[in-house]
Amino acid sequence: MAQSASETVIGLATRRKTARRFRRTGVDLEDVHYCIRAAVQAPSGANRQPWRFVLVDDEEAKARIRASCEEQERRFHEKAETNLKGWFESKGITWQKQFLTDAPVLLAVFSNQKMPYAIESTWLAVGYILLALEERSLSTLTYTPSYPENVRAAFGAPEEYRLETILPIGHSADKKPKEERRQFESLIYRNAWNLQR
Amino acid sequence: MAQSASETVIGLATRRKTARRFRRTGVDLEDVHYCIRAAVQAPSGANRQPWRFVLVDDEEAKARIRASCEEQERRFHEKAETNLKGWFESKGITWQKQFLTDAPVLLAVFSNQKMPYAIESTWLAVGYILLALEERSLSTLTYTPSYPENVRAAFGAPEEYRLETILPIGHSADKKPKEERRQFESLIYRNAWNLQR
Repeated sequence: MAQSASETVIGLATRRKTARRFRRTGVDLEDVHYCIRAAVQAPSGANRQPWRFVLVDDEEAKARIRASCEEQERRFHEKAETNLKGWFESKGITWQKQFLTDAPVLLAVFSNQKMPYAIESTWLAVGYILLALEERSLSTLTYTPSYPENVRAAFGAPEEYRLETILPIGHSADKKPKEERRQFESLIYRNAWNLQR
Repeated sequence: MAQSASETVIGLATRRKTARRFRRTGVDLEDVHYCIRAAVQAPSGANRQPWRFVLVDDEEAKARIRASCEEQERRFHEKAETNLKGWFESKGITWQKQFLTDAPVLLAVFSNQKMPYAIESTWLAVGYILLALEERSLSTLTYTPSYPENVRAAFGAPEEYRLETILPIGHSADKKPKEERRQFESLIYRNAWNLQR
């Protein structure tokens, strides 16, 4: 298990960037467990803890999940409007999701739709996971499959569980810099919208 | 400004608990800025950064926001089904939201609904905020107003922005223990749903 770096939250948040490519180096599952252990401490609507996690490290299972996702992505890309198609092209994003088999581990995060604030609570917990991954020097991408209801079966998840994200986890082989952020001052108001910061 | 404790993510996550009551002790706005600075480093759908923050420390503004929220909560509690009413009663939750005026600072978090994955991205960033607040020894409650579209006006926010949460921020005066979490092993599967952990 990798040592915890004991970094400040802002240090972890600032440093971490999305990885689209992964090295083949393995991942210690204990490190992923660590991140999930942090996540399940998050608050949730009525403390119902709507989240469930499927940790995938079996190569065949990853290939099956990738095939299922790519089938839906192809549909999505075909139907996409011209604007969106242009944006995908400018970013080099296609229906192919190689990171789903390149990354040594996938962490699929589901939310129980029958529970209050299931999506909100689960994504809050995903925030915890991202910072914990960074602390363990692991990289990820918050991949949100298109038509997730059609990908659920690849995990064998029950119908009431919505697939929120699949986090490919590993050591980054991505050389792109972190994407830029808007100026802090443009995002915050004091006492009312449009008042002084 | 309070010193950063430089704690591990799991330490922050495990220790932090929801505060429903606050001491009158003031909050250094720099500490809240710190948390927002961490939050805006979160990833977001197409890096659109759909979040906006309104930091409220004016007493009159807090009172107006509380009144607006309570008006909606009264409606919600009146309409609630018997089961939910019973649950509210068991938890001592009423339409009254005293924490909205007790806490020295409110941080309202909005998401631009025209941006992709606005809710998901914004709640992920809220996860960052909670851990950063804990690092700065500040407490909060992730309050989700009922009928948030009717509370938006109290902030003067434009229509495309959805009020996701109002975080009352301060020093906790809450003596309740942290709410229990489900067993980790019951939340995680390996390779497929219902397979060995």
